[in-house]
Order: sequence, then C-alpha cells, then structure tokens
Amino acid sequence: MNSERTDGGKLTADDIVTVADVKAARDRLDGVVHRTPLDRSTTFAERSGAASVGLKLENMQRTGSFKSRGAYNTMAGLSPAERERGVVASSAGNHAQGVAFAGGLLDIDTTIVVPEVTPSAKIEATRGYGADVIVEGDIYERSYEHALELADEEGLQFVHPFNDEEIIAGQGTVGLELLDQYPELDTVLVSIGGGGLISGIATVLKAHDPDIRVVGVQPEGAFHAKPSLERGEIHELPDVNTVAEGIADTRLLDKTFAVIRERVDDVVSASDREMRVAVTLLAERAKTVAETAGAAPLAALLSGAVDVEDEHVAVVVSGGNVNLSEHADCTRTGLMRLGRYAEARLSVADWPDGLGALTETLDHHGAELEELERARRTDADDPNRTPVRVGVAGGGRDHLSSVVDALNDREGIAVENSTLDG
Amino acid sequence: MNSERTDGGKLTADDIVTVADVKAARDRLDGVVHRTPLDRSTTFAERSGAASVGLKLENMQRTGSFKSRGAYNTMAGLSPAERERGVVASSAGNHAQGVAFAGGLLDIDTTIVVPEVTPSAKIEATRGYGADVIVEGDIYERSYEHALELADEEGLQFVHPFNDEEIIAGQGTVGLELLDQYPELDTVLVSIGGGGLISGIATVLKAHDPDIRVVGVQPEGAFHAKPSLERGEIHELPDVNTVAEGIADTRLLDKTFAVIRERVDDVVSASDREMRVAVTLLAERAKTVAETAGAAPLAALLSGAVDVEDEHVAVVVSGGNVNLSEHADCTRTGLMRLGRYAEARLSVADWPDGLGALTETLDHHGAELEELERARRTDADDPNRTPVRVGVAGGGRDHLSSVVDALNDREGIAVENSTLDG
Repeated sequence: MNSERTDGGKLTADDIVTVADVKAARDRLDGVVHRTPLDRSTTFAERSGAASVGLKLENMQRTGSFKSRGAYNTMAGLSPAERERGVVASSAGNHAQGVAFAGGLLDIDTTIVVPEVTPSAKIEATRGYGADVIVEGDIYERSYEHALELADEEGLQFVHPFNDEEIIAGQGTVGLELLDQYPELDTVLVSIGGGGLISGIATVLKAHDPDIRVVGVQPEGAFHAKPSLERGEIHELPDVNTVAEGIADTRLLDKTFAVIRERVDDVVSASDREMRVAVTLLAERAKTVAETAGAAPLAALLSGAVDVEDEHVAVVVSGGNVNLSEHADCTRTGLMRLGRYAEARLSVADWPDGLGALTETLDHHGAELEELERARRTDADDPNRTPVRVGVAGGGRDHLSSVVDALNDREGIAVENSTLDG
Repeated sequence: MNSERTDGGKLTADDIVTVADVKAARDRLDGVVHRTPLDRSTTFAERSGAASVGLKLENMQRTGSFKSRGAYNTMAGLSPAERERGVVASSAGNHAQGVAFAGGLLDIDTTIVVPEVTPSAKIEATRGYGADVIVEGDIYERSYEHALELADEEGLQFVHPFNDEEIIAGQGTVGLELLDQYPELDTVLVSIGGGGLISGIATVLKAHDPDIRVVGVQPEGAFHAKPSLERGEIHELPDVNTVAEGIADTRLLDKTFAVIRERVDDVVSASDREMRVAVTLLAERAKTVAETAGAAPLAALLSGAVDVEDEHVAVVVSGGNVNLSEHADCTRTGLMRLGRYAEARLSVADWPDGLGALTETLDHHGAELEELERARRTDADDPNRTPVRVGVAGGGRDHLSSVVDALNDREGIAVENSTLDG
C-alpha cells in the first residue's frame, strides 16, 4: 500500500490501482471467497428496455457482501510483523464482518470499533467471526477516531473501508468475474458509498474496453460523487439522509476520487422509494435478499435514470445484510408502492355481520385479506357505522382499485380512503 | 412418452427414464433454462456436521422453480400436430408457471385450470407468461378432472405435473448440473411431492455412482413415500396437513413410484416448524427466498434427520414462489423459534412515563424494540399498572432471556409472560 501518497489532487488512477493489482488480488482470493453468480433476469431486461440484464449477486458473497474481498486482500498482504500485532477497523456494517472474516482465516487478531447504535445482532455476527468488538462513539466518526487511536497506541494496522489500494484491488475482482461471466457487457451499474467497489470494478472494465460504461449510483440523500466529478474536487455533504445505510457516506476520499474521476463515466441517483421497490422486486422476482444499498443500482435501472436501450447491463447487488424484520417492512412498503398491497379504511353498517359481505367481496374479486382491525372511532365517523381498517393484497394497482370500487358498491360498506389514493 | 404403460408394479425404473433421456433433455433445455448456482454454505456445514453443504438454488430457475425444466422438455417433444392443438394442465402453483413459460417460448397455446382458492397474484403470474387460465374446482382434484375433460373434449395434450417420462427426464437435468458443480457429492437431499424431481435426480446420480446417497424429504403431514417404499406399493394418504403447499401431495403415481423404489435410498420427514426455520435461515444466511416446500431438505439436514457427518451434501432448494407477505410471516415465526425475536406482555407502573425506562433498558442491553402496543386490560391485571405488549429482536435466546430478566428487574416494570417461555 502506498499510504504515504495522500497529497490529494495530484494522484492519478494508475498510482492507486491497476489491473495487475486486481489480478494479484484474484490469486490471493482464489478459494477464499465465492465467485458469485451472475443471474440473468428477463423481467428486469423487459422493464428497462435493455437487451439483457445480469445481476451480479455479491449479497451471496461470504459475509453477505463484497467487503470480504477487499478486507482479505488487504490483510493477506500484511507483513508477518503486522499480522502478529493485529488489525483494527471501524464499521457498523459489512466492512466489520469482512475484516473479522479475513482475520479468522488468516489468524490475525481483529478489533472492530462500532458505534453505540449498532444492533446487537450485528455485533454478534461480527463476534461470531472471531473479532473483538468495542462499542465506542455516539456516531460513526467517533468510532473511526477511536479506531485510529487504537491503531496508534497499540501498533495495530488500521484497515480502511475504502480509501486503500489493496481494498480497491480486492473489490476489483468483481470486475474480473463480470468480464468472464458476461463478456457482452455494455454498461455496469454499481453503488457508491465511499467508492471502493466502483473504483476496483472500473479499473478492470476500462482497461479491458474503454467503451464499457461504468455508472455509479448513490442515494438522493447522499449524492456527493456527481458534484465531486463536476467540480473536479471532492465535495463533502454536511449530512446524509437515506434508508441505504450501507452507502450513507458524506464524501469520497483522495484515492477513490482519483480513480473515479478517471474511470467512471457518470453517477446517477436513486430515491429511497425507488430503492425499497427494488429490494421488493429482487425478493419477488430474483428470489434474493438485498439490503437497500445493494438494491440502489437496480433502482436506478428501473427508474430510467440511465438509458440502457438494447444494451447488456450488469447490475451489482453489493450486499444482503439486512435484519429480516427490516426487510419485511421494506418489501411491505415496496408492495404498496407497486399497488400490490393496499390499506383502506372502511365503514360497515352492521358490524360484525357485515364482515361476511366484506370477505365475500374480496374473495369474489380474487383479493386476499391480510389484515383486519376494528378501528378507533373518530369524530368524522358516522355513529351508526363501524370503522374498520383492512390490508389487502392483489395483482396490481388496477386490480386493487377495482376491488376497492367493488367494496364501495357493496351495500352496507363504504370506503373512506385507501393507500391507493396517494 | 410411454403413457400406455400404466400397469403399476410391473414397471421398472429403466422403462421410465434413463440417463440418456436426461441428457437428451439437457440438450433441449440448453439456453432455455438457467444453470442454477450451487451456493456453498459454511454456516450450514458447521450446523449439520457435514464436510460441506451446497445449496442447489432452483428457486433462481426461470419461473422460480425447477418445474420449467420438465414442462419445457415435455412440450418441446410434442409432435407438430400436438403443438398445434395446444396443451392443458392443472396446477395452482409452480407447474402452472412452468407450462405457461414453455408454451410462450414454443408458441404452444396453454390452458391452465386452477382451483377457486388460487390467489389472484398467482393467476396473474401465469397469465403473464401467456396462458389461458380457467378457474374451476373447489379443490385441486376437481381442477385436475376438468383439465382431463378439456384434454379429451378439445384434443389438447395434458401435461402431468410429475408422472411422465419427459417431465422426469427434464427435472433430472438438475442432477447433471450437480455432478458438474459438486463432483465430491456424497448425499443429496430432495423434497418429494409427487416425486418427479427426485426421480430425475436419482436416475442421474445412481447411474454415475451407486454410492451417492439420494434421500427424499417430505412434510410430516404429507409423508407417503416412505410407507410406499416400506410396503412395496403406493400408499395413499386420506388427506394432507402441511404449510408446504408445493409438496402437499397424497401419493406417488406409478412412474415416480417405480423410479423411487429402485433409485432412492431413503425418505425422511420435516415438520412445519423445521421448514419455517429453514426458510428463515435461507433468507438470513444464504440471502435467498425459498418457499416452504423448497426449504424442506434444509430443514431435514438441520434437524439431524439424516446423518451427514463429514459428508459433502447437496441440498436442493426447489422453488421460491411465495407471496412476500407470507414469506415475512414465515420468517417472523422462524425468528421466534430461533429465539431471535420475542413478544412479551409487561405491566408498567407509570404509563406513559415508564416507557422511558422500558426503551432505556432495551437499548442498554442491545435489543431492538420492533413493536409496542398498549394492551387491553384483563381481570388478571393489577388495576394500578398498565398492560403493554412488546415485540423485541435480539441476538438469540440467551440474549433475549437476559433482556427479559433485565426488564423484570427494572423498577416499575413487570414481565407477565413472553414467547420465550414456551
């Protein structure tokens, strides 16, 4: 690692990482990490107008994200003395698991500093790989500072989550696999947090064929890479606001900026709503569990943020480390956005006998009653009628709208409002 | 197809299907269906004591299950005249989508008869592949009879979901891929509904190496194949009772029985509870969405129903066609079984101020409050205290038990009961 070269704007991409570095990383990673599947999706090709779409499923990578590639590559490159002293990192997420995983395989002691808000399940997962976990810092920056202090005081090697040559080279092995699995590739969409993954992938693809387009995707609420490219200097956001925790960074750093500036064609954004829908479609259509950050590139593809007409498009699904309850909440929201699930407030004239008419109408129209609650009465309610809230699943917005109309047409039932109205 | 050979016990497996038939199917299916990934799982190997575990992800197959293999192989083998007249099938599930998908690719008109209870979303999915869907029959058997009537009256080719030589040969292509992807294979676990999938896979594996063990898995509530093997004749259940709709069959039929009798080593069972846990672990650990039937083999592996000590074990995840709301319900149940989510009924002395103590305690112990409800008061409740129901996520049974204890120790909070008690 050339960590002494931190003089900012003077760095060139080749100073940081070349295809030879990525190929060296591939040799180190052989037999250690998975060559993840490329899943061809007819559905997403049809919806986007692409000639073909391939999902590169890094959520199926060991530790549940691409981060194990870079972490292992970096730590495998440490000297015997450095290995002996151990490493330290700060992360509440996938980098923590990547470093802990690599430490276990390489027999290197790992210390991970996590912020206080980190859910116990994530701490347990990281400890499960054999790391020492230190809870320190009310926000991530404090954990980061504490990790640097530990590195300094105890002589530990600090493993940066993205701004590091060996990390970038490790993540670049995704690009080598893509060339092999998807040689017809025209465009690749990759999420950007700090920019390590896209830096590695772009290095490989641009060296192979400069006409392959590499497009970064960021949340609307953490959209710093595009202004950085436009201004020619790193743009730092004062704060971020997105559901995509995995890519909720405020800025690139010198090394990722230098690579992205030369090798990435464009950066587009995805909204939280679009990412939730993408998580939902990944589960429903591709049968795969993605975290919100991992679904950002698909969100950008399906929203039309990138014109991919008749192109062969790779979509990198970077990670799948999401609590299943959160995933369920996310897909419920996504189904509502897609018009496949709706909640409605009704009033029925003769509770509880009117429920028979309600269920019969739903059944007759092929909708499924998933939730039912006798709602609290408000001033707006007719005193002779009982308020009811229902959650109903159906085939799409048109279908559910017709179901709501049918309920309204049924004697004794009135629909006050529904989520389809919004 | 030798559909005239239905004289029962006299059939031998070689009369039905040979490796040559499966290889012919592979040639037909080349470029049509996916070669699905084999996902190596360290987690499941450690939990089962196996040397390695590979998940064969047929839930990532086109149409979301292995059924597209057999359906396409059968329909591609029809004569021009048969293709011209079209095909009919009955199914509320994966076979419907497989047949509709194959019809679309081969330009064959397809009619699918589905029972009245079929959710609209499944009907829409089948129509989406271009099939005519007829809703007929209060139970599946009526739909089946209606499909046979249509075949007879309109000269349509009936495509059976499993009891057919070409269907079995098509499903057998999973076995060819397994040999290629996992040559060290010792044991394969495959779910059995009507037995088409395991018949095809066993045909390939036993021909390659008779020492490879092929084990079928059925739900406890639809466990007919083992008694059939033991008695040497097809055992029909009077009814079935399982959450695994995809394999809720009452019996094998003559062709699958003939093959399974000769080529399958054993059949074990999985409980509904075990299958729900397996669905949960597949989502959480393997990042893959499986239907309950598709998780049955993993359930059997993790319950210890098969001794796989130091073996290389393939687990076929046969399908992933599950409504996301049902999947979310399933994983919630699974997390409760795993002790990772608990619901508790508490009473607090000073509602609403006591909520601060509640959330502080949870936070301090690293648990997440996912649901909170001021509960209805019952006769058993202390009139000076307010009943509250909470749903809490944590790292496991020990962790959540300690959290519950900590809540109980907190002044002003008493835990009446929790799902950890059960």
